[in-house]
Amino acid sequence: MITAKAWAAQTPTSELAPWQFERREVGAHDVQFDIQYCGVCHSDLHQIRNDWFEGIFPMVPGHEIVGKVVKVGAHVKKFKVGDLAAVGCLVDSCRTCSSCNDGLEQYCLNGATGTYNSREQDHKTPTYGGYSNTIVVNEDFVLHISDKLDLTATAPLLCAGITTYSPLRHWKVGKGHKLAVLGLGGLGHMAVKFGVAFGADVTVLSTSPKKEADAKKLGAHHFVVTTDPEQVKKAKGSFDFILDTVSAEHDLSFYLSLLKVNGSLICVGLPSSPFSLPAFSVVGGRKSVAGSSIGGIAETQEMLDFCAEKGIVSDIELIAMKDIQSAYDRMIKGDVRYRFVIDMATL
Amino acid sequence: MITAKAWAAQTPTSELAPWQFERREVGAHDVQFDIQYCGVCHSDLHQIRNDWFEGIFPMVPGHEIVGKVVKVGAHVKKFKVGDLAAVGCLVDSCRTCSSCNDGLEQYCLNGATGTYNSREQDHKTPTYGGYSNTIVVNEDFVLHISDKLDLTATAPLLCAGITTYSPLRHWKVGKGHKLAVLGLGGLGHMAVKFGVAFGADVTVLSTSPKKEADAKKLGAHHFVVTTDPEQVKKAKGSFDFILDTVSAEHDLSFYLSLLKVNGSLICVGLPSSPFSLPAFSVVGGRKSVAGSSIGGIAETQEMLDFCAEKGIVSDIELIAMKDIQSAYDRMIKGDVRYRFVIDMATL
Repeated sequence: MITAKAWAAQTPTSELAPWQFERREVGAHDVQFDIQYCGVCHSDLHQIRNDWFEGIFPMVPGHEIVGKVVKVGAHVKKFKVGDLAAVGCLVDSCRTCSSCNDGLEQYCLNGATGTYNSREQDHKTPTYGGYSNTIVVNEDFVLHISDKLDLTATAPLLCAGITTYSPLRHWKVGKGHKLAVLGLGGLGHMAVKFGVAFGADVTVLSTSPKKEADAKKLGAHHFVVTTDPEQVKKAKGSFDFILDTVSAEHDLSFYLSLLKVNGSLICVGLPSSPFSLPAFSVVGGRKSVAGSSIGGIAETQEMLDFCAEKGIVSDIELIAMKDIQSAYDRMIKGDVRYRFVIDMATL
Repeated sequence: MITAKAWAAQTPTSELAPWQFERREVGAHDVQFDIQYCGVCHSDLHQIRNDWFEGIFPMVPGHEIVGKVVKVGAHVKKFKVGDLAAVGCLVDSCRTCSSCNDGLEQYCLNGATGTYNSREQDHKTPTYGGYSNTIVVNEDFVLHISDKLDLTATAPLLCAGITTYSPLRHWKVGKGHKLAVLGLGGLGHMAVKFGVAFGADVTVLSTSPKKEADAKKLGAHHFVVTTDPEQVKKAKGSFDFILDTVSAEHDLSFYLSLLKVNGSLICVGLPSSPFSLPAFSVVGGRKSVAGSSIGGIAETQEMLDFCAEKGIVSDIELIAMKDIQSAYDRMIKGDVRYRFVIDMATL
């Protein structure tokens, strides 16, 4: 076994602290890579706090993981020692169901294996994430990263990136479409970048007027302050798509009123409480509320390649491992532009 | 002016009773037809009871209207005296907005004119529906009915028919699709007929096992009792589409779990209270909750022509005008197979 160093939450109420655990030996189809950077996702906090479901403790969060390959198994074909490598939210899936066959491992009908707070396909062994120094993953779930990309700022692409890229691709959002991005955080700022790159006319919706300059700097063409009745009046019925990245409670019905006839609001955030959805708000105007979860492995590679081609990365703040708690505190307040990334050299 | 006889609700708490009012003279582009049959829609009851919004009283309900033309205006080209004619839920719209230009008058951005409990495009004159002996409507909102169809059973096509036909066409439901129909009432029984006619594999979802024989008689291929855990277990993740015709409160999340990955639940019913929609129930499996409202005029004609070609009509119970209250009472209990139609000769 490989002894891994990490920071873990021992219980849903404890702060993260140093911990050691064992990762499996590198199997014939496995890649081991040393983790250089790991992004901090809002879902890390949701999961160590048991906000969504009862977690597996001790829990090592982190599913935006990049680093360098240090060992490969005998049958590994896609990676060699020294390659850059990445892992996102998934480390395995059943590989036999219709979703897996369609490259939609994130919707694996038998339950994909999450990178942490999940169990391997043996349905027993817990998984531990990227707030650690090294990781062992089957090569089919490891991604290549171009050396053209700034590695530090690439980490968040593995969750915030693919989670916004995938729905924009699935719904074919691009030229001629008016896209609104709701929430300008880790996911939202990537949605703006991708929306612009795909040729859509991009508007950021925010309750806070002071985010306008930042939104424009990210490439957004327009900005609507949703607490300003005049701006809202103009925005009514104007969008083809709203990509909703907000994980806090919010009024879907209001945002649906901003969609055109046939428009879709796509949720990628996960509020803990259910939305209140009046039937009238979708029936009037043949609108939809859809959801989308991360992306499949092939699509994640496609996204990373697209980012390398277009020079797209996340805007980040690099932190030391010991500062994770204050990073969480700031993240809760939305005080981050736009993603914390942990420098794992500080472990 | 034309004196019309009708049954009207004088207030949201009063029962329907005989009333007389004036319809406009037949204008150059108007068609007047004497109403022979008018369907009884659940929304008639919602509207006279102010369940959805504050109504315009006195109110003459009825928007499933068929009859025979008795007078046409000087410039009318599409109808002549003696023709069969029908009117559904709409009698006018702005005719200039993008929705109207797209043949989606039901989503008119300036507000379509409903057949009753609405106002003409002058935003003043109230409209009165089909529980009356005659009606005057601009020819562009009057539909042709083939004499191949049983006129009595054709009336419900104008709302229950088009409300289910339109979404099935819009989402291209047909061969190779598994369609579930939720609610076997006026709308649901039409959804089964159309789903089968379009080549879909149709399942009726119901809490009541005793509806199975009826569902099969209507053409449904399968029947799932949603209170039977064994049947539900088998149905999980199995449908491409659920057409949700239920206007009472129900648990969307449960029904979403019956959809395949990428599946859509389409609401055509209008519960008075908002749905509770956990984000997880759409994000997991990239599912959608969509809505759809009646259909445009061209599509309504297309539906009537399709019905004539395929011999599709509604299953009805013909009633006398004086029995409307007991029909409402039975409708509330779901005790109708599947649509009451008023014989207007009994007015």
